[in-house]
Amino acid sequence: MLTYNMTDRAGASLYEHLYRCIRRDIETGVITEDERLPSKRSLAKHLGVSLITIEGAYSQLIAEGYLRSEQRRGYFANRPVILPQLRAASRIPACNEGALEDTNNVIGQNTLPTNKVTAEATALTAAAAIALPAATAPPATTAPPIIDLRTGNTSLELFPFKLWTRTIRNVLAHESERTLLADVPQAGLLRLRSALASYLHGSRGMDVEPEQIIVGAGAQYLYGLLIQLIGRKYTYAIETPGYPRLAKIYRANDVDVAFIPLDEQGACVDALRKSSADVVHLMPSHQFPTGLVTPIGRRYELLAWASESDNRYLIEDDYDCEFRFAGMPIPALQSIDSSERVIYVNTFTKSLGATFRVGYLVLPRHLVKRFSEQLSFYSNTVSALDQLVLALFIENGDYERHVSRLRNKQRTLRDELISALKVSAIAESILIEREDAGLHFILGIESQRSDEELKEAFLREGLDIYPLSCYELPTKGYSERLSDRNHSAEGGPNEIHRFAICYGGIAKEEVKPVVCAMERAIYNI
Amino acid sequence: MLTYNMTDRAGASLYEHLYRCIRRDIETGVITEDERLPSKRSLAKHLGVSLITIEGAYSQLIAEGYLRSEQRRGYFANRPVILPQLRAASRIPACNEGALEDTNNVIGQNTLPTNKVTAEATALTAAAAIALPAATAPPATTAPPIIDLRTGNTSLELFPFKLWTRTIRNVLAHESERTLLADVPQAGLLRLRSALASYLHGSRGMDVEPEQIIVGAGAQYLYGLLIQLIGRKYTYAIETPGYPRLAKIYRANDVDVAFIPLDEQGACVDALRKSSADVVHLMPSHQFPTGLVTPIGRRYELLAWASESDNRYLIEDDYDCEFRFAGMPIPALQSIDSSERVIYVNTFTKSLGATFRVGYLVLPRHLVKRFSEQLSFYSNTVSALDQLVLALFIENGDYERHVSRLRNKQRTLRDELISALKVSAIAESILIEREDAGLHFILGIESQRSDEELKEAFLREGLDIYPLSCYELPTKGYSERLSDRNHSAEGGPNEIHRFAICYGGIAKEEVKPVVCAMERAIYNI
Repeated sequence: MLTYNMTDRAGASLYEHLYRCIRRDIETGVITEDERLPSKRSLAKHLGVSLITIEGAYSQLIAEGYLRSEQRRGYFANRPVILPQLRAASRIPACNEGALEDTNNVIGQNTLPTNKVTAEATALTAAAAIALPAATAPPATTAPPIIDLRTGNTSLELFPFKLWTRTIRNVLAHESERTLLADVPQAGLLRLRSALASYLHGSRGMDVEPEQIIVGAGAQYLYGLLIQLIGRKYTYAIETPGYPRLAKIYRANDVDVAFIPLDEQGACVDALRKSSADVVHLMPSHQFPTGLVTPIGRRYELLAWASESDNRYLIEDDYDCEFRFAGMPIPALQSIDSSERVIYVNTFTKSLGATFRVGYLVLPRHLVKRFSEQLSFYSNTVSALDQLVLALFIENGDYERHVSRLRNKQRTLRDELISALKVSAIAESILIEREDAGLHFILGIESQRSDEELKEAFLREGLDIYPLSCYELPTKGYSERLSDRNHSAEGGPNEIHRFAICYGGIAKEEVKPVVCAMERAIYNI
Repeated sequence: MLTYNMTDRAGASLYEHLYRCIRRDIETGVITEDERLPSKRSLAKHLGVSLITIEGAYSQLIAEGYLRSEQRRGYFANRPVILPQLRAASRIPACNEGALEDTNNVIGQNTLPTNKVTAEATALTAAAAIALPAATAPPATTAPPIIDLRTGNTSLELFPFKLWTRTIRNVLAHESERTLLADVPQAGLLRLRSALASYLHGSRGMDVEPEQIIVGAGAQYLYGLLIQLIGRKYTYAIETPGYPRLAKIYRANDVDVAFIPLDEQGACVDALRKSSADVVHLMPSHQFPTGLVTPIGRRYELLAWASESDNRYLIEDDYDCEFRFAGMPIPALQSIDSSERVIYVNTFTKSLGATFRVGYLVLPRHLVKRFSEQLSFYSNTVSALDQLVLALFIENGDYERHVSRLRNKQRTLRDELISALKVSAIAESILIEREDAGLHFILGIESQRSDEELKEAFLREGLDIYPLSCYELPTKGYSERLSDRNHSAEGGPNEIHRFAICYGGIAKEEVKPVVCAMERAIYNI
């Protein structure tokens, strides 16, 4: 059986390394023409690597013509005809780090490129494509058709493109040169901040002065600004399970990060008290990935905790608040905060798409003052045009109408997906939870497989879906986490494995392929 | 002849004081209706003040209707019809407290609002208005026409507005929805980065791959990103005199800041060696505020220092490189860096105005790798539209043509300003230095006054100009610095006081008023 040293990989990922080793052996004749290669499963076992690794390497070799797959017979080496463009393509990109890395990149404001499935996509070409970004694959190959149920980035089709470009044209036609070129105040154009204040009043019941609003180039930038405002000496807590990317942002800013576990109501106040946390980053309207909506009682407990010290703050990340499909909306934490402890953050990522790089903070009044005292030397990061366009879009009601339409579309999408799942072949093995708010719900799967095995099975079927266990954030480093994860949510007696289904980015036509792929993944692993 | 005590002026400038004295005499009837006033020349001689002072006072009185000028006959008092708003307007404001704070805000990307004089403005009405800012004037009065020679922000008139809006319309019309809405890669759109790489090759002789370029929402944001990339444990040095705002940005990011003095060639390498600096923020093409252009020898010395350790970097801030008016351009530090030690930073602030929030880094290759490993979770901060518009603007040559036009305009402006100064009443008391690059030159003034007194005299005449001593950055806190400054650059025997004249934001029509105001400020303090 093929034997390679899988440890000394010179920075390459396992699959890349294996791909290179096999290719070299084919090119040099160590593996002869028409030689049958070991089955994926046996090679995985032999080398002590995952099936996915073997699959990635084999698929790449097939795509490049080094191997062929013969149905029910296995994999065979071809005569090594090395075409120049394939050679060029086979210069291995350092693309694998990316693949693992991506695990940690899941976030509401995610902008990682994801590729849509074409209906024809099969599991294997998908798996191959993951490993090989289009840039490095041979020219003829189509883009990797993976359906994204992980980031939930709003589908481009839902962006009000015509309305948007018309608004830009309107602004260019009707605003004076002076207005368009005028220096933007540090916190953003007053006109946009007024529009936002009024929108927040109407949609979130928040009583906010425009002066409390700070506009900036996306939430990530604003978190960095907040750390400069509040102070780097404090400990910033995030929820677990939660967004790994949040931990990365706080860590890149060199603050101590604590992790607060969730109970059935949201962030655990007892855990908060036991932690060293000063500032807590929460998603009370709709937690990612658990989908938890923090009830009012817990909200007051969190506010009480925060009000016990002048250095405590709750960062309310209201990332998908526009999407509540049932029940009464629960007021924003910010709107019931009487002690100036809540900093509200939102973006337009879920409503206008990830391309739209505008976010905003709502600061308590004392922080507005501190902001202008401590950070007045910073310029605003969003162009006047972008701010004017957004302001006009909100002022004339287009934004609210768009959100309302989008909410209806997403509700329909959710209903269709859930209905299809309920009549699918896997209906008896699944349960659906927390589907009433936000753009994802929880799919519980009863299975003997581990979370990781199920995730890989989904991926082989072209579905990018992550289990909640992938979002568990230990205080240890990420590499440890990745290996830890293999030991958690293990297979064994039937258990319920919970996955976050972020459907916000799929098209109506993809509902059926998604459900079929899930059926295949769950039954045919 | 009118006789007033010109010594006891309660802080007012000579011209203001004289204006008030004459006005009071007209209002109280000491000067009667239609009374002929002394000629400017004779009154100047009589009071022992300059002609400019008399001119300033008379013109203001004419503008306000107290006097009239009759051709070849002289100046006559009108009947004193005292309009209420004129009375209110005459309360003289203490107009420069804010100005001191602003000292710390000076930076290339400065966005402090400044007010332009309209083309019709004459020196004298401008001078009059200086003393009467809108804040204390009645509502109908216009904003105080302080001429900004401090920030040098490009005048709005020079922004290619029509070309720009046309480019936006072109992009909206010709780019697909998918292109406009596609996720922007973390480092920016490849199309923009390619356009920038090609532009840098042509204009700066830099041999840069698009992959080395990171696009972001302005230089300030990019500095924060750089600190996350390089590390917060290192000491970041900035030049002194230099931008106080840079020190603020690095400090807000909680890194240690060192200050490297300049000698005649630029940042002092000896001082650098004695400091704890690891990373040095330099402006070798045209240092602000000194105007120094670092010669090639010193550049190699700086590179040699940087190449001595893997943790050392030179941040090359090339903020106004587009404006070189004489001599051969000196290659960018980046272009002669063979050890991957230079990080190049630039924006479009000087060429497209402060509103345009796009900056970029050019990273050495090993940092590109580190960037994608360590900071891959960050989304890009500039919208796809803004990037596409800029890319198209560069690709089709519009940007280069605009820069070329702007360079010519700025050269003409510089030439006219310098010529006017050379034939002005103060020609014998001034010297002009470092006028061949960038958008400011150094005005040396021989005077017994202190820097601070001269600065205040300029401000009273409506000129916002700072001496180099205002940009000296001690390691102590800013409040200490402000008081320190009063003891430095003191008055006494005639000395040369150096001021940075940032003319980039003034209009052609303002050249004469500026020179007249300088004459008044320097002679009549």
